Amino acid sequence: MEYPQESFVNTTFTPGSFWARRREIVRAQTLRHQLEMLKKTGRYEAFKLEWHPSYSDPPTVYPVPNHQFWDSDVAKWIEGACYLLTDHFDAEIDEAVQELVRMIQGAQQGDGYLNIHYSVVEPGKRFTNLRDMHELYNAGHLIEAALAHHHFYKNDKMLAPILKYVDLLSRTFGSSESQIPGYPGHPEIELALLRLYKVTQDPKHLQLARFFIEERGNPHGGKEKRHFYDVEREARGESEHDLPMCYPAARSYWYQQAHTPIINQETIEGHSVRAMYLLTAVADMIRISDPSPDAASELGSKYLLALHRLWSNMIEKKSYVTGGIGAMKKWEGFGIDYFLPHGTDEGGCYAETCAAIGVMMLAERLLQIELKSEYADIMELCLYNAVLTGMSLDGKAFTYVNQLASSDEDLSQRHEWFECACCPPNVTRTLGFLGGYVWSQRIKESEKAASATAIVNVHLYTSATLRLETKGCKSGTIQIIQKTDWPWNGDVDFNISAEDSESESDAELELELRLRIPGWASGSWEITPRPNKITIHDGYLYLDKNWIREHPKFRFSCPMQARIVRPHPLTMQRVAYITRGPIVYCVEDIDHPWEQDHFKRIVFDPKAALQEEKRSDPDAYVAIIAEKAALGQLDTSAWDGKIVAGGEGGGKDTLIGESRDLCFIPYYLRANRGGRGQMRVGLRVL
Amino acid sequence: MEYPQESFVNTTFTPGSFWARRREIVRAQTLRHQLEMLKKTGRYEAFKLEWHPSYSDPPTVYPVPNHQFWDSDVAKWIEGACYLLTDHFDAEIDEAVQELVRMIQGAQQGDGYLNIHYSVVEPGKRFTNLRDMHELYNAGHLIEAALAHHHFYKNDKMLAPILKYVDLLSRTFGSSESQIPGYPGHPEIELALLRLYKVTQDPKHLQLARFFIEERGNPHGGKEKRHFYDVEREARGESEHDLPMCYPAARSYWYQQAHTPIINQETIEGHSVRAMYLLTAVADMIRISDPSPDAASELGSKYLLALHRLWSNMIEKKSYVTGGIGAMKKWEGFGIDYFLPHGTDEGGCYAETCAAIGVMMLAERLLQIELKSEYADIMELCLYNAVLTGMSLDGKAFTYVNQLASSDEDLSQRHEWFECACCPPNVTRTLGFLGGYVWSQRIKESEKAASATAIVNVHLYTSATLRLETKGCKSGTIQIIQKTDWPWNGDVDFNISAEDSESESDAELELELRLRIPGWASGSWEITPRPNKITIHDGYLYLDKNWIREHPKFRFSCPMQARIVRPHPLTMQRVAYITRGPIVYCVEDIDHPWEQDHFKRIVFDPKAALQEEKRSDPDAYVAIIAEKAALGQLDTSAWDGKIVAGGEGGGKDTLIGESRDLCFIPYYLRANRGGRGQMRVGLRVL
Repeated sequence: MEYPQESFVNTTFTPGSFWARRREIVRAQTLRHQLEMLKKTGRYEAFKLEWHPSYSDPPTVYPVPNHQFWDSDVAKWIEGACYLLTDHFDAEIDEAVQELVRMIQGAQQGDGYLNIHYSVVEPGKRFTNLRDMHELYNAGHLIEAALAHHHFYKNDKMLAPILKYVDLLSRTFGSSESQIPGYPGHPEIELALLRLYKVTQDPKHLQLARFFIEERGNPHGGKEKRHFYDVEREARGESEHDLPMCYPAARSYWYQQAHTPIINQETIEGHSVRAMYLLTAVADMIRISDPSPDAASELGSKYLLALHRLWSNMIEKKSYVTGGIGAMKKWEGFGIDYFLPHGTDEGGCYAETCAAIGVMMLAERLLQIELKSEYADIMELCLYNAVLTGMSLDGKAFTYVNQLASSDEDLSQRHEWFECACCPPNVTRTLGFLGGYVWSQRIKESEKAASATAIVNVHLYTSATLRLETKGCKSGTIQIIQKTDWPWNGDVDFNISAEDSESESDAELELELRLRIPGWASGSWEITPRPNKITIHDGYLYLDKNWIREHPKFRFSCPMQARIVRPHPLTMQRVAYITRGPIVYCVEDIDHPWEQDHFKRIVFDPKAALQEEKRSDPDAYVAIIAEKAALGQLDTSAWDGKIVAGGEGGGKDTLIGESRDLCFIPYYLRANRGGRGQMRVGLRVL
Repeated sequence: MEYPQESFVNTTFTPGSFWARRREIVRAQTLRHQLEMLKKTGRYEAFKLEWHPSYSDPPTVYPVPNHQFWDSDVAKWIEGACYLLTDHFDAEIDEAVQELVRMIQGAQQGDGYLNIHYSVVEPGKRFTNLRDMHELYNAGHLIEAALAHHHFYKNDKMLAPILKYVDLLSRTFGSSESQIPGYPGHPEIELALLRLYKVTQDPKHLQLARFFIEERGNPHGGKEKRHFYDVEREARGESEHDLPMCYPAARSYWYQQAHTPIINQETIEGHSVRAMYLLTAVADMIRISDPSPDAASELGSKYLLALHRLWSNMIEKKSYVTGGIGAMKKWEGFGIDYFLPHGTDEGGCYAETCAAIGVMMLAERLLQIELKSEYADIMELCLYNAVLTGMSLDGKAFTYVNQLASSDEDLSQRHEWFECACCPPNVTRTLGFLGGYVWSQRIKESEKAASATAIVNVHLYTSATLRLETKGCKSGTIQIIQKTDWPWNGDVDFNISAEDSESESDAELELELRLRIPGWASGSWEITPRPNKITIHDGYLYLDKNWIREHPKFRFSCPMQARIVRPHPLTMQRVAYITRGPIVYCVEDIDHPWEQDHFKRIVFDPKAALQEEKRSDPDAYVAIIAEKAALGQLDTSAWDGKIVAGGEGGGKDTLIGESRDLCFIPYYLRANRGGRGQMRVGLRVL
């Protein structure tokens, strides 16, 4: 078992390549910009536990105080900084991390408690509102930051206080008489505790995570044999009709995926980030419990069934073409099946950046349970679209919501920061450990001593080098180099070698390689030289060690060309999308100064000739020019003043105006080149 | 100015005709069935002010007690009964009316107060929650019942106590220091007070209605210069986050059309029944204030502008093909523009029966301000579809919600009663005074004495006779007979005569007639004999008195044939509807036993041959058989397991399965012939 947050250190992105340039911007610009925002908003010094004027502000999203997440904003920044410092030490960033850690140490209460809000604003109220408040969510992010800090600094300056806090949490939560039988409204600590367990091997850490996961949604929990959130609310003296702003009705515990135990959940519901963080932890729990063929494993298989069910429901019925999830603004989450409007003026489209990051996390965990390209396809789709669109090219502006179509109410634009600032540092840390998503690796032991085999699964293609120490394997250090212009060109040149760690001479390659065949390339990929026997399992091309030994250099090609795809008919979206390789495209007003209505009435010809155009400004990308593809504007005059029109014969849409060229650019590039904020991914077809 | 609730007495539906048969069922079956339901549920005796066990039930729609509407249920039944007794005296119904009136008299408090809930359950809390409670709504329905009672019984047994109650209300509400500066959360009393004013000519009644209308939504109301609902809530000691179940967020006063004064409202919002009742009252207020060219009239024109704006927004962007309004279940009302999903599994469709009744009320009032066929078209559309579907053929089962497509969650079915039972007696009273909707009439005075002209505007076509006493007009009593098989056949034979009231001999016809040209017949209507000069204003054919005198018998024809119409493209509904004359059609599973999925995946050929089939079971109607029109089932296998499919070229929908005939029946007839409750109005087209 491995975590990308640890394994990323084995990967080096080739300087000048797509992701190397992006990560360099994050390192040089984003980290500094976000540090500045932390300082400007009061977050940076908040662990000093002094009063900040904003603590008096009424909550924007009742009943959660606006500063409730500050602990996690700082924690995610520390986490991202530690990943990026691994690549390239930076004294200013290092100094800020060290200072923050000292402030966190200083903020810890005598019994280990560590939380800004409940230390400064509401002392004495800790752990009284797990449903709404983000106390344990913040604790989870502090654990993840401490792990990243420990991983980079190799000291316990942050981990030690966090472990003390976790000890308090372990004593506080659980099923014994003296413990609180509760679980967090916003999952996150579960996956953090499981990561912590891998480092500490402390059974308390596994036990607490399992308690939170298994108790969640129990209708007969605790002494009172009732739902914990009911008991807790009554203890606070609140009416069930005192509704959190995200609740459409009293006791909407599905918002928190706590309406029923996870193993009983049939469809993916509620707040999409919470759902992803929770299911990521569930996948981890399965991985951890899997080896033992006991009751835990039986439980594991029930959880795996739930994961399959919820993943399928999400991907097949509740996801956008960009990988974005969550149509509903009110609860920042999932709507009913196939309800996927593209913008506010169609009924919604949320697709929060953090949620797409959560999909990547879950997909990565699922890949470790089952190597299936369907998971990696979604992971890549999210990365290049729903996640990457969350940050501007200069690394200093961010999105929270990622709609597929703008409207006058919600323009396509980025912001330098948010009051609820979960997304910006989440992008930072994700790009920080991105190398861990490119491939996964393990050593397969053999009965013969010193003949273990390294197995590397390649999920993403990009110019990068993996260096893998293979203890107990003849190969010593294996090096795998990918060279490619992905995502613009689908040719990937592999160059594999092994080096004896002691002698620094070549070693024999004991490597099995599995290459993901992208779904969009399933009928067109090639490998050169071509193996005599092609072995494909679940969308991965398996290359055995003999073939690798004979062909340490080979080319894997996934031809990229513009494709027209469309959403499921039951979405009622009569539109076409343009994609190319893993990239989803959009149109923007800056390329079409004649457009005034967000391309809402433009009718697109899906048979138009599509020309690729390599561009280098403001960054290298491939634009797609669709000649005369805007057939005209939808003519709706037949409906003026009427409920329905009398188009005998059920007439098709009719058009007015002339046909014009359309210019499509990658969705992630939107809102980087000026313009009026008008953008659309899916264009109406006749 | 006239009210259909009074003028209906001039109309006699021809026995055996479409509406005569319907009204006979209401008289003979529905009134009795509903009386039984009133008795069975406790409503009948509730004005005895004894405790009923159900008063302890928790509210189904927090915070409104389930019995909160009981006063109005009884009142609407009395109102309907009085209209129907006019046609045909019925001792059992008469006795029940009389007994109810005695109980209402007995329930009145010393100061005139009259309300079940606040007399029995929460005495002392009257008028403390106008926002949520239905105290003034109930009062409005009691006023309307008293007017109907007074109109039929020609005594004051019900009107007197109600006038005493209204006196209390007039003292209680207003802008002076000692008064409550509030207005009802659910409008209704405004239109009732204006009707009352016509009878009493008591300026207090007009003044109170105007206060409620003009003060509504005032952000700087009362002594505190704040929104009344804020002040009132704080006085109750409630948090703004203690949310009524219909509120999506704190202070969602748009739910009650009280977010801003009516003259500032740009779009129609919130609970659809409330909106219609309110705007009906606004139209009445304009009619009343119009004659005087003073400040009131200036205000009147501002209100007329608002009415035009809100009507257009509703009809063009927020109405269904059936005339139903309101897509959103949560607040039983309007969604955003063009958001008109057809069923629960598409995101909603409410179209409450009462709301369509409200549209008819508003359309009728607008017709009296401006004679435009667009209003009458909608009135007729609602009547034959969104309203008529609200009651079963046997008159004993009802709908509340009228979706255009069923789903497993919400089948197409009717119920004998509802906990919130507003709709059933609303249908009863509407059919009770239906004659008042068929035509409107007034006497145009002339400078020459005794030469006034009667003007009759014919809005609806049906077999019926209008007898019009024309005081001050040479015509004496004018009689207009329509003979037609509408809505199945569009030929209407008119036969007009005048009779001197004293001599009972023929009198000279001093009549101008205006015939509505239905929108769907605008290109095909005929009149025989044809006038030399055709005069059409705003969709009405004007026939002057000379022509009428020469042609007291003529035929007006609006050829009916099946038409394919479709919703506005911005609704994203790629479907076709079948209509014929004023009737909207649907398909039901009983005619298509092979259908299992609510016709959701059936693809319809809008060019299929449509055959009309006259049927007589379970009632006379015209079915439409579309030969081989179900082209097949939508094939969605390309999306299995995927977010999007790779249909190159933006492929159209593909089909599986064989083509089959489809049988369309009138939407209002649905759920009358057995079956599994699967129904759909709009079928998907390629």
